[in-house]
Amino acid sequence: MIETPYLLFLGDAPDMLAAKVAQGIRDWRPENAIGQFRMEGCKADMNLPDMTLAEAKAAGARTLVIGVANRGGVISAAWKKVLVEALEEGFDLASGLHNLLRDEPDLKAVAEATGRRLHDVRVPSVQYPIANGEKRTGKRCLAVGTDCSVGKMYTAMAMDRDMKQRGLKSSFRATGQTGILITGEGVPLDAVIADFMAGSVEWLTPGNDPDHWDMIEGQGSLFHVSYSGVTMALIHGGQPDALILSHEPTREHMRGLPGYKLPSLEMLRDTALPLARVANPACEVVGVSVNTQHMGEDEAQSYLAEVEARMGLPATDPYRFGAAKLVDALVALG
Amino acid sequence: MIETPYLLFLGDAPDMLAAKVAQGIRDWRPENAIGQFRMEGCKADMNLPDMTLAEAKAAGARTLVIGVANRGGVISAAWKKVLVEALEEGFDLASGLHNLLRDEPDLKAVAEATGRRLHDVRVPSVQYPIANGEKRTGKRCLAVGTDCSVGKMYTAMAMDRDMKQRGLKSSFRATGQTGILITGEGVPLDAVIADFMAGSVEWLTPGNDPDHWDMIEGQGSLFHVSYSGVTMALIHGGQPDALILSHEPTREHMRGLPGYKLPSLEMLRDTALPLARVANPACEVVGVSVNTQHMGEDEAQSYLAEVEARMGLPATDPYRFGAAKLVDALVALG
Repeated sequence: MIETPYLLFLGDAPDMLAAKVAQGIRDWRPENAIGQFRMEGCKADMNLPDMTLAEAKAAGARTLVIGVANRGGVISAAWKKVLVEALEEGFDLASGLHNLLRDEPDLKAVAEATGRRLHDVRVPSVQYPIANGEKRTGKRCLAVGTDCSVGKMYTAMAMDRDMKQRGLKSSFRATGQTGILITGEGVPLDAVIADFMAGSVEWLTPGNDPDHWDMIEGQGSLFHVSYSGVTMALIHGGQPDALILSHEPTREHMRGLPGYKLPSLEMLRDTALPLARVANPACEVVGVSVNTQHMGEDEAQSYLAEVEARMGLPATDPYRFGAAKLVDALVALG
Repeated sequence: MIETPYLLFLGDAPDMLAAKVAQGIRDWRPENAIGQFRMEGCKADMNLPDMTLAEAKAAGARTLVIGVANRGGVISAAWKKVLVEALEEGFDLASGLHNLLRDEPDLKAVAEATGRRLHDVRVPSVQYPIANGEKRTGKRCLAVGTDCSVGKMYTAMAMDRDMKQRGLKSSFRATGQTGILITGEGVPLDAVIADFMAGSVEWLTPGNDPDHWDMIEGQGSLFHVSYSGVTMALIHGGQPDALILSHEPTREHMRGLPGYKLPSLEMLRDTALPLARVANPACEVVGVSVNTQHMGEDEAQSYLAEVEARMGLPATDPYRFGAAKLVDALVALG
């Protein structure tokens, strides 16, 4: 578990896109983001107070989170200077970079000398069990996508926020690097060893109050040949009571796979639901989440209306138009 | 790649069942098994010549393969004595044990001093790529099961043998510890990191002659919640042209999951085939392989006849009655 609140390290981000981890934290857990640390030339801005390490420390920040992608696969000398200073100032460090903090001898040595922790959220820190398939108490919701990167995490985040605003019991359960950095805990599922994937999801979503919902972050897609095994493990390890179908209508082929067309929402429903019912016979598809970022407002609204009519399910873009419809559907499930 | 031929180490096996790795090698690659090494009290016998290390060395053996399970999760002092001597005599060691040979300081030191290799086939030795989903030349066949441990490996082995006897081009592709020890190479799929599972299967079954068949060893089951992700990665990474449905009719529940019933062969077909067609639209289900070991001869034959009539597919127990029917079906596919 990563200690909050955070100071967000934006480094020398060349643009906003490079700082999407910081953006996720700012959007979904603003209470975790006390300020931002920007180096010379930084082109990203989270509209948070710019702080020095000392100022952030005084304001109560516990962890410096690397909220930006690094260039060229190395942690630069300029970054290093800040990271070492942060450890000396008493911050833990947290990172989702492919280059692990722990693999940098200087960071490792300073962390040991100062008693600070290096959180590399890309690699598991837990010995997960093999899944036992036993029915757990409490409820679980999982978004499954026609493709990767269609908004499954944002859907779960938006539903979790809406649930909490209604005073309902909900926990967002992170299964990827960004989600883990946003919430401070979770399972880096794509880095888990095959035999333990479903078990890690069981571990992440343990038995809970009967009226508590886990909003599980989805990964991959049953139709994406590179990552479908990860999705399968989420469906069986998560034993969801409710599935949300997630889609991005303007995509011309599966992400990174030019020869592969996206399936229809009907195909996704008819594939995912029977598989989910292996682990939870009561599972239902309750709604559709559409990523409309590449559509105008009218186009988006008419697309959603068409989907609702065709699928007989509530459909929304939870980031753009709110998640209320999807949460209503969960509540109706009882 | 493990160097052949082997001397099979049976240790102090309490019974034949404990030596099933040795049995697999003896059954499927007898040309790889020059002899057996038995310690005092060994209750297993492969009907191979008993040899000392020196005799086996003189007969040309290159690797001592641990063909027996160890008791209590430790490599005993009595075993160690033999293993160290084998390294000194010039043998490589190969093992599928959970305890890795490389984690034993004495074995590691002697192997380094003698220049011998320690093959721990339970852990990957290759950095696998992420699957790219590109169509490969050549043909591939995969057995998918209603459950784990229903005879998928034996089905692929038996089909591979029959293909070779007919002069057809075929390679058995091992994806588990036993298969890797039998053939000397493969991918330990259950130990591969999630993101690279499908890519490891692509790596294992590369482009080949148009009339060459890879007989891919199946793993897990789409209906086994602990391991379904591994099966999914095999189906998408292997992009099979042909699926064989594998079943064990006397099993009362999914292996290790008392609350879970086995699916019907029809459910398996209707679930696996659409998923396989995501990666290979030309995929067909060509036959059924039934593990009849717990059935009498008449019972087995009448069960197979019933399955053939019901499914409209050739059905056999390839271990008991031969794989010819299944190979005929592959050949008919063209």
